[in-house]
Amino acid sequence: MANLRFLVLGSAAGGGLPQWNCNCSNCAAARDPASPLSAQTQSSLGVSVGGSDWAIFNASPDIRQQILQTPALHPHALRHSPIKSIVITNADVDHIGGLLTVREKQPFDLFATSAIEKVLDANPVFGVLDPAHVRRRTIRLEEAFSPLAGLEARMFAVPGKVALYLEDGEPELGIEGEQTIGIEFLSGGFRAYYIPGCATLTDALAERIRGADLVFFDGTVFTDDEMITVGTGVKTGQRMGHMAISGKDGSLEPLSKLGIGRVVYVHINNTNPIWRSGPERAAVEAAGMAVAFDGMEIDLERRSE
Amino acid sequence: MANLRFLVLGSAAGGGLPQWNCNCSNCAAARDPASPLSAQTQSSLGVSVGGSDWAIFNASPDIRQQILQTPALHPHALRHSPIKSIVITNADVDHIGGLLTVREKQPFDLFATSAIEKVLDANPVFGVLDPAHVRRRTIRLEEAFSPLAGLEARMFAVPGKVALYLEDGEPELGIEGEQTIGIEFLSGGFRAYYIPGCATLTDALAERIRGADLVFFDGTVFTDDEMITVGTGVKTGQRMGHMAISGKDGSLEPLSKLGIGRVVYVHINNTNPIWRSGPERAAVEAAGMAVAFDGMEIDLERRSE
Repeated sequence: MANLRFLVLGSAAGGGLPQWNCNCSNCAAARDPASPLSAQTQSSLGVSVGGSDWAIFNASPDIRQQILQTPALHPHALRHSPIKSIVITNADVDHIGGLLTVREKQPFDLFATSAIEKVLDANPVFGVLDPAHVRRRTIRLEEAFSPLAGLEARMFAVPGKVALYLEDGEPELGIEGEQTIGIEFLSGGFRAYYIPGCATLTDALAERIRGADLVFFDGTVFTDDEMITVGTGVKTGQRMGHMAISGKDGSLEPLSKLGIGRVVYVHINNTNPIWRSGPERAAVEAAGMAVAFDGMEIDLERRSE
Repeated sequence: MANLRFLVLGSAAGGGLPQWNCNCSNCAAARDPASPLSAQTQSSLGVSVGGSDWAIFNASPDIRQQILQTPALHPHALRHSPIKSIVITNADVDHIGGLLTVREKQPFDLFATSAIEKVLDANPVFGVLDPAHVRRRTIRLEEAFSPLAGLEARMFAVPGKVALYLEDGEPELGIEGEQTIGIEFLSGGFRAYYIPGCATLTDALAERIRGADLVFFDGTVFTDDEMITVGTGVKTGQRMGHMAISGKDGSLEPLSKLGIGRVVYVHINNTNPIWRSGPERAAVEAAGMAVAFDGMEIDLERRSE
């Protein structure tokens, strides 16, 4: 049987690495051809069963560049795309901006919760996605759906917050609802998760992902006050709806105790020290976890029946 | 005195070259590392007086990639950008999509007509441009404004149509209004124009640009029925609001008779044969005109006083 394949299309958080107006040490290194750190695009994950048809999780503003640099996603006919489905996990600009690019009368299924669909519908610019070609698939939390043949997926609420541009005063933090979701993948006996945004690793979430074969998890910031320390912002990770990797409320320690086959940090902010060699990255790797990068491919090989 | 510098950030029309789901001969060539044709990003022009501060005309969805590949637009401080102004010439996705990228609390001036501002305001997602940092400058047609020190600019109506996603039934074609505009640049004794979309070269428009030092002009399609012939679409250039380069209603012949110092075709569709060597490109070059490419730089050197 065909393998279950994951391809990190974009490993960085909103703004990417480098951010357009940032010259922090990571951003400067990513612009420097002499540095081992290369530029990384904004958050998106491709999933395939067998490598021919693909489902894309989150439509990054960089999707055009991501498709261009990924031969598996190139068209095979005059008008064609291996991308059969796009699934949206929240309404942040870095997760929906790319929907403006996937126009041109190409049929695909667009999966989202009704809360996320309401955000799209409130913006006429997303009318570029002609309903004659793009089939809306409204998904309820915890309901099984199939973005590709041979792949069962399920959306579930994780603690988060509404998208920044939808904030009205101080947002409620750590709320669970349809605004921020994780994805569960079941295929060929494997169980995997994609959780690019998460404010707290609750007991319920820990139990859910325990023993999974693979978990892509929110690696936005290493320390909660990192943006303040680097001097690029005034918000903590928590205020942005993202738990830190390190610290007593961080994800590293609890994730390492859940018997997960492989943990990969994704949605990494430009300020995060795990982009480069150093004690922070060493701590992640010492815990047996990986740091995503654009083009990272993970194949789960089918177990013999 | 400092030179007036133009930098083509994106030479391609909406969708870019290659388009994500297109495998026409140009798109296939642009994906082929062995081909001399390289990938090109979506329509945008940078303008500078002296090369330090920049005004960007149209915010391409590829703006993040364009900034990354243009050292002149890299930040010089922890939070900084040489981009001081962004000017929008119409509400097409390929001209406003990039506004979703230039967030991150960076101050700049956003110049647009009230018609284009209404489109932005009707889409809450553009709320990522925090008014505390991005100063809206509503410009009336034919009113002089200064996107940069030492640069006088003027918006003027050109024949066009409303953006595709704003169409309501069959749109009125060739209308002149605030929906599609050209830009006139005056600086250091030079006169230049940026007209990335134009449905007809009217007598009034011809008189306006006559004798200019430099004109960037709508090069979307070479022949009006090109997309139909290539098989990628059912619309003519006219139906999209773009006059062809060739033919009796084309721009090539009339533009060649206006005594313009240099004409550069921009906003080039993926189907356009001028991307590559051949009789069409030869015809453009024989008329003394140029085909834009990403990174093309044109300096107008200040005349001695």
